Formats: sequence, structure tokens, C-alpha cells
Amino acid sequence: MRFQESTIEGKNAVLEAFRAGKTIDRLFILDGAREGAISSILREAKKGDTIITFVKKERLDQMSETKNHQGVIAYAAAYEYAEVSDILDAARAKGESPFVIILDGIEDPHNLGAIIRSANLAGAHGVIIPKRRAAGLTSTVAKTSAGALNYTPVAKVTNLTATMEELKKEGMWFACADMGGQSMYDCNFTGSFGLVIGSEGDGVSRLVKEHCDFTASIPMKGDIDSLNASVAAGILMFEAARQRALKKQ
Amino acid sequence: MRFQESTIEGKNAVLEAFRAGKTIDRLFILDGAREGAISSILREAKKGDTIITFVKKERLDQMSETKNHQGVIAYAAAYEYAEVSDILDAARAKGESPFVIILDGIEDPHNLGAIIRSANLAGAHGVIIPKRRAAGLTSTVAKTSAGALNYTPVAKVTNLTATMEELKKEGMWFACADMGGQSMYDCNFTGSFGLVIGSEGDGVSRLVKEHCDFTASIPMKGDIDSLNASVAAGILMFEAARQRALKKQ
Repeated sequence: MRFQESTIEGKNAVLEAFRAGKTIDRLFILDGAREGAISSILREAKKGDTIITFVKKERLDQMSETKNHQGVIAYAAAYEYAEVSDILDAARAKGESPFVIILDGIEDPHNLGAIIRSANLAGAHGVIIPKRRAAGLTSTVAKTSAGALNYTPVAKVTNLTATMEELKKEGMWFACADMGGQSMYDCNFTGSFGLVIGSEGDGVSRLVKEHCDFTASIPMKGDIDSLNASVAAGILMFEAARQRALKKQ
Repeated sequence: MRFQESTIEGKNAVLEAFRAGKTIDRLFILDGAREGAISSILREAKKGDTIITFVKKERLDQMSETKNHQGVIAYAAAYEYAEVSDILDAARAKGESPFVIILDGIEDPHNLGAIIRSANLAGAHGVIIPKRRAAGLTSTVAKTSAGALNYTPVAKVTNLTATMEELKKEGMWFACADMGGQSMYDCNFTGSFGLVIGSEGDGVSRLVKEHCDFTASIPMKGDIDSLNASVAAGILMFEAARQRALKKQ
């Protein structure tokens, strides 16, 4: 199991972290702030015996990585990366076939956060990211995920294709999201299924694509090339969610 | 017709602007840069008699609003806001029923850009935004739209509900994107249709919602509250695109 230091910034992200039962080591609050979400955060912090420090705006600005702390910064013990087996266990615990999102090199932490957020709401059991050339679970990702990072396991693997081959042995199949494939409405996204999303600039890499069972495309009109990576991922995941709901998986 | 000064930054955004026939007043390029996309930009610039200035990185960094200029900054004559009638004309010119996206207070320019990008690719004929409490067409929006701003008309109106009432007289109906409504798969998004998307924090405002014909929801699983605004907009728009393609509108 791997651990990583983490800073959580912003009212919603911090409140969600408390509510999800995360261990918050220290909490920094803007001097004098007591109203609304801040008072709920303080209540949660007192329940958990978190050390609370009231500080001036300048101090928070200096500590902030996202530059959008909204008067609250929390230091969590860690964002724990899951193992791939944890994701499969999560599916099993719900009595569902595994539905996994594989990200081949998403580099923008805002996109990563938005994708984890969508994955949670589309009912995916987890997200797999590679160790190299990809955003990790930073505080920006936590904030952009709007709390989803507390619920949806994210596993980090050394070699995506090796992981895919292992999962294939357990009966999983993979769709590569790319242009020029079959319309996603004609694809089968049910069963033990992994959706592979490529990087912002280059899409899915050749090697990873070769390990996919088929290529799925969003039918598009219009004048430009491609959707934003997190929007495309969201559209594909919710098409999978629709198909899976019909089959009650 | 309203005009607004605009700076376009980044290779793809500048190249798309040239190709879409935008008037570029001045072009600033990093000293010595000639390769790849930059050479295509220089070729386009020479065709259009654009004034080209080669400058040092420090100068570009100073001029840059997005802090991600990639060695290219262009000053366009204007981003021209369209009139609502231009959007209806665009639909008519294609022989299609109007499909319009109405944004009730999107404040993040990255979300606005991503939504315009999705609107273009989903085949929407235009986007309507309110004058107050909303992001305008800044260079960040242009860049995030990945060129879509050059093709998809964006109209800015004083009063969203008054505009909606005028459009209703022309036979348009409106769906409000919000939780607690009918599943989007059971809604009818065909015909002369406007999709209303709310702001990041507060959703669709009460008044605007009252002027909608029905509320459409994305069926969701998961543990958190809501999708990112541009992801939700993308999912709804592409469900509309799917329904409209089936009816060949």
C-alpha cells in the first residue's frame, strides 16, 4: 500500500473529507471565520479531536497550493492509493461486475479530479492510473473531485498493459476511447469492463490501444477535432452506466 | 452587435482562429520559433498580411493572460457576440430545428470554454449567456474552447427569461438540467429545443427554472452530490445529439 502526503483545500473538499471519515491531522481556518460551511467543518473537527489553528489570510495564501483555499486548509494523514484488487473487491461487495476506468496519461489535475468525480457518479468501482507521465492525487485533484476521492479507489500501477493483461485473465475486457472506432451506442459496455481514456494531447498510446478489445467513439458533429478529456470520459462512462443499468449490473 | 477585445494564446487556438477566417491584428511569436504549428501559423499570417513581431519569452510571459501561451499570442480584432437571431439562422441554414444551449451563470472560463467546445461537437447551433454574473468570451475561454468559439455563435442577453419567452413564441421548448427531474433518457430533446445549464455552485436559478417546460436529470449512482458543470452539460448535450440523430434533425 502506498501513501502520499495530502493537503485538502476549500470548504466542500474539507467537509467531505471529514464526513468520509478521513483522518485530518491539522486544520487551518481563516481568523474569525465561523459561518456556514466553516461552522460545520469546526463541528466535525472537534468530534475527531483535530488540531485547529486560526491563521491570517496571508498565511493561508502562502500555504495554499490551489490558490483557492476559501479560508480552509486541512492536512490529511494521506491519500491512500488502492490496489487493483481493492477495486475488484469493491465491485464484489456490491454484487456487481467490475467497471473500471483506466487513464492512460491524464496530466491535468483538474481533468483527473473531474474524471474521478464522474467515475464515482457513473458507478465505476475504481480508477487505474500509471506511475509515470500522469497527474497523481494532489490537493488540486482532491478539490476538483468534489469529495469523490474519498469514495472511489484510485490505483497506481507501474505498467498499464501488464495490469490489463492480468485483468483479462479474470474475464475483464477493455474498450479504448478514440476517434474512428465503433459508435459507443453500438458497443457493449456491460459485464466485467474497463474503459480506457487517453491523455489530453495524444489520446490512448499505441501500445495500450493494442491491448484493448475494441475502440469506442462518441458520434460527433461540428467543426473542431475533439472534446475536453474529462467531458469525453464523462460521456462514455455515463453511456456505460446507462447500458449497465438496463442489464441491472 | 457587440464587440470585445480579445487575445488568443497557444498554438492550436491561434491556428484555428486563422483557419476560421478571424481577423488577427497582430501576432507575437517567440524569437527563433519556426517549427511545427508555428510555421503553419506564420504561413497563415503572411496570407492575411498580419503584422508579425518576434519577441523574447519574458515579453510573452508578461503579455500572457493564461500563462500558457506556448510561444504564440495573437490579438484578434474582436470576438463578436452573435445575436440570438444569428443562432436561429444557423439552424435554418443547415435545415435543422434549432438546438440551443442556455447557460444560467457559468462563472468559470474553463467551464464556459469546455461547454462551447462540447456544444460545437454535439451539433448545437449556438450558446446563449446572460450579461451579468457570468464569464464572458475571454482568451481563456477561447483557448479552452479549442477553436469552437470560431464556429459556434455565442449570444449575450440582458434577460434570459425574456429571451426564453421570445423563443417560446417561435415554437422552442426548454429543458432545465437539474437533479430530481425526469431521467434524460425518458425526456424528449428533439425539435426546436433549448437546454438550460445552471451555474457551478447554485444550478439553474428559480426564475429561469420556472420558465422551463420540464426538468431533465442524468441518472446517477455514487456517493457525492453532482458532476462538474461542463461534464454534466456534455452528457446532456450528447444525449440530445443522440436523440436528434435518430430523428435526423
